[in-house]
Amino acid sequence: MTEILSEKVDELSEQMAKQLNGKEEEVDNEDDKVDPWNVTSNSKAGVDYDKLIVRFGCSKLNDEILTKMETLINQKVHHFLRRGIFFSHRDLHLILKRYEEKKPFFLYTGRGPSSSALHLGHLIPFMFTRWIQEAFNVPLVIQMTDDEKFLWKDLTIETTKKMTKENVKDIIAMGFDVNKTFIFSDLSYIGKCPEFYENIIRVQRSVTFNQVKGIFGFGDSDCIGKIAFPAIQAAPSFSSSFPFIFDGKKDIPSLIPCAIDQDPYFRMTRDVAPRLSLPKPALMHSSFLPALTGAQTKMSASDPNNSIFLTDTPNQIKNKINRYAFSGGGATVDEHRANGGDCDIDISYQYMKFFMEDDNRLEELRTEYSSGRLLTGDLKKELIGILQKVVAEHQERRKTVTDEIVEQFMTPRKLNF
Amino acid sequence: MTEILSEKVDELSEQMAKQLNGKEEEVDNEDDKVDPWNVTSNSKAGVDYDKLIVRFGCSKLNDEILTKMETLINQKVHHFLRRGIFFSHRDLHLILKRYEEKKPFFLYTGRGPSSSALHLGHLIPFMFTRWIQEAFNVPLVIQMTDDEKFLWKDLTIETTKKMTKENVKDIIAMGFDVNKTFIFSDLSYIGKCPEFYENIIRVQRSVTFNQVKGIFGFGDSDCIGKIAFPAIQAAPSFSSSFPFIFDGKKDIPSLIPCAIDQDPYFRMTRDVAPRLSLPKPALMHSSFLPALTGAQTKMSASDPNNSIFLTDTPNQIKNKINRYAFSGGGATVDEHRANGGDCDIDISYQYMKFFMEDDNRLEELRTEYSSGRLLTGDLKKELIGILQKVVAEHQERRKTVTDEIVEQFMTPRKLNF
Repeated sequence: MTEILSEKVDELSEQMAKQLNGKEEEVDNEDDKVDPWNVTSNSKAGVDYDKLIVRFGCSKLNDEILTKMETLINQKVHHFLRRGIFFSHRDLHLILKRYEEKKPFFLYTGRGPSSSALHLGHLIPFMFTRWIQEAFNVPLVIQMTDDEKFLWKDLTIETTKKMTKENVKDIIAMGFDVNKTFIFSDLSYIGKCPEFYENIIRVQRSVTFNQVKGIFGFGDSDCIGKIAFPAIQAAPSFSSSFPFIFDGKKDIPSLIPCAIDQDPYFRMTRDVAPRLSLPKPALMHSSFLPALTGAQTKMSASDPNNSIFLTDTPNQIKNKINRYAFSGGGATVDEHRANGGDCDIDISYQYMKFFMEDDNRLEELRTEYSSGRLLTGDLKKELIGILQKVVAEHQERRKTVTDEIVEQFMTPRKLNF
Repeated sequence: MTEILSEKVDELSEQMAKQLNGKEEEVDNEDDKVDPWNVTSNSKAGVDYDKLIVRFGCSKLNDEILTKMETLINQKVHHFLRRGIFFSHRDLHLILKRYEEKKPFFLYTGRGPSSSALHLGHLIPFMFTRWIQEAFNVPLVIQMTDDEKFLWKDLTIETTKKMTKENVKDIIAMGFDVNKTFIFSDLSYIGKCPEFYENIIRVQRSVTFNQVKGIFGFGDSDCIGKIAFPAIQAAPSFSSSFPFIFDGKKDIPSLIPCAIDQDPYFRMTRDVAPRLSLPKPALMHSSFLPALTGAQTKMSASDPNNSIFLTDTPNQIKNKINRYAFSGGGATVDEHRANGGDCDIDISYQYMKFFMEDDNRLEELRTEYSSGRLLTGDLKKELIGILQKVVAEHQERRKTVTDEIVEQFMTPRKLNF
């Protein structure tokens, strides 16, 4: 009964969102732009996530559901949840109900491999996914969409494969448990698992060009590979795409932690799932780690001065933050002491929210900086220390990831859960 | 040098064909309709194949190239060639040149599996392919596009797989050599061979929606699976899609014997190949076995009274021909004796051209029937005998095709050539 009602609410809110979307496109093109290829905002405080919840028709991760989660897992939720960095969801309550009833679910997340090193923004969904995997003790599948990169960028298949391998090493270095985690690249997994391809074409039969045009903005001059690609991102949402993990069971739902810009893929997937008699995936959405120079855009590998890479040296990290991290402080020390700093737009403070685990210290910094007692320089200094540690520790762990370990993670096999 | 010139001629004739096409669509919609899903003509003599050669921009299989072939293989060419049933080609001269230079090539043909039994029309490309495989002693790959059927028809994947298996038994019964032939179903082969999927997305990246719209008439409300499908039909044209047969070599060209309605897929493939640094497939095109009731349409499984199935009994064959086979004879015996019969539109005579091997007897029938000395009934009687034999022999051979033999043909493996 709860599930039926929830489906209904979900449908209605999605319909409402679609109507709103249509309207907004006509009258309000000043809005935040959030899709899988673009994230921009006109506001210094970045994307308005509350508005996005309404536009996308998803639900806020409110205190009620977080408290429920804490009761179930018998621990405090991750600071990404406490601080609203993961801020929205679809059907998380159904997943929690399953957990309560000791019914299985699995986690699915992914990444389009990049030629450059990963940056701090890439860490967010994976840090969170690792936490949620540990808290709930569930299997996880990670899709590397090397075919997507091949289709969108002017790269050879060989290059995308190499990128994937390097990126997988970084992902493994984030601390995933090989006994519970399967990492796969589309380019090789499609050629290994007929059940995966079957789900892909099931989705491809259920989605028209008109629909992907509406959802993703594809046009007539786009290649047919791009047009068909959303089905490939959709297919791992279904347990039947991994027969060796789930013994061919079709009815185990997935929970997908991802940045909110990936939501269009899964709105489409959720739309299609009932027609395929498959469970809709549930989602948890994160906000974006802002670019160094300000929250109008997210951190992006294409601008090295706007990003901190997982390969940066302590010195590079220090210099980038000191030079580029946008300050919410006053123009002069006197002004700052008089008016205080604005944490909502100060990039150093925003990064602390992502990477400082200590809630008390974070609150202390917020009040001190807002009051003007703490200067931007002090805030930056503390952030530099934190990020140097995060990056150095990652680099240490990555050194230990051998080709053999990559092979282990990427071999289709039974997982323990 | 020959190859460069031939490429140029090919390009120019294709351009010309495109221009002609554009024009014809505007001014002349009375023309024969020939695409992968429709074949219809307004003429009782059926499709005008000479016109089609010009429209499609392909080349006639003329005496010169057939004589060349006979010299090379040291035997008479198949009666399908002698009688213009296979009537057109693309780049066959390049394949013959390779054969002369003892360079390898391979054959590729295929079939979209059907729920009903195969009919006589389905035999044509396979009979010819078997002959050409024997004459040139080359490997052959046969693609069963079960995914295509899934995308176009309201069928489950399980049903399409069953259809494939039954259809494969019929194909094997046509006498292919298991040591030189690999038969595969898309649904399972894509999930077994990463190199095949890689070629598929290489093609998918090189073709836009605009192009498939132009070539195949797809529209915005078509599902994205259909839109992407032509790349799947294209991929087996390339030897690198079969690494276990060709040791990963990319430069071995294919020769594709098929009915002319499949040409659009391979025009697209030939357009894409040079951009992928892969050889263009060569083609040999057959005309269609007409429907029993007349050459305005081809034989089709959807109308049982218009088709002779490979499962028909001798009596069914006799009755269908006697009742439905369109006659080119006079309305009365007297009229027929006076004016003679018209072999160009007489279905019984047309079927003889496909299934009677004896050239002398065929010519005798033609003159006798044209002169009016032979009656429609006599012609039908002779045809019935021939077809009863063709079908009965097929049924005998099909009985011997076990599941194990199917498995052998469909296992990716090295071939002997």
